[in-house]
Amino acid sequence: MERIVEQNLLYDFYGELLTAHQKEIYGEHILNDMTATEIAAEFGITRQAVHDMIRRCDKILADYEARLHLVAKFLTAKEKIKEIHTLSRRLLKEDKEQMEEDIRQIESVCNQVLEDL
Amino acid sequence: MERIVEQNLLYDFYGELLTAHQKEIYGEHILNDMTATEIAAEFGITRQAVHDMIRRCDKILADYEARLHLVAKFLTAKEKIKEIHTLSRRLLKEDKEQMEEDIRQIESVCNQVLEDL
Repeated sequence: MERIVEQNLLYDFYGELLTAHQKEIYGEHILNDMTATEIAAEFGITRQAVHDMIRRCDKILADYEARLHLVAKFLTAKEKIKEIHTLSRRLLKEDKEQMEEDIRQIESVCNQVLEDL
Repeated sequence: MERIVEQNLLYDFYGELLTAHQKEIYGEHILNDMTATEIAAEFGITRQAVHDMIRRCDKILADYEARLHLVAKFLTAKEKIKEIHTLSRRLLKEDKEQMEEDIRQIESVCNQVLEDL
């Protein structure tokens, strides 16, 4: 996964566990794609302080994921829902036998998601 | 939702964010259904200390949920997957028109889950 996509996901899941100040600075970096120089100017702090803050937030969010694995769980569920979606879309074009197989497959994937969640 | 079911869910999602000691004591209460008296005897602490610890853990876990809403999100997704499962189970018994409608419904619920996750 691309680094910025991963940072975005982690921020999306665990961002509320950062302090207001961390959220503000890290959010500018992650959501608004601002450089350290731009953020430093906006908040009147040094570029080094911005870099340290970003690295610290990266670590905090990665630690939450290492303990809770919720991003990984959600990504797996998402892939499976996409699979169900794909299967259901093609059902009407199928003969009875293929349709029965795909419906069993939909049920099986549903059960997998329910077990994982 | 029943209190103990809610506590179990919160522990399941955020339990790893408790300290080892909190997890141990709260786990005995939540997972093994032990009373405060039993836990106090096992750990050689007072019943009051156990009560305080349980109340504190309840609060910590509830605070995480208040900020992240992940249990609520998962429960909603779970309900929708059950709906997809129910719809897919009955597809084969339906006439073509009803089947088309239910397949559209499956796709729509899939999209809802994907948007929410």
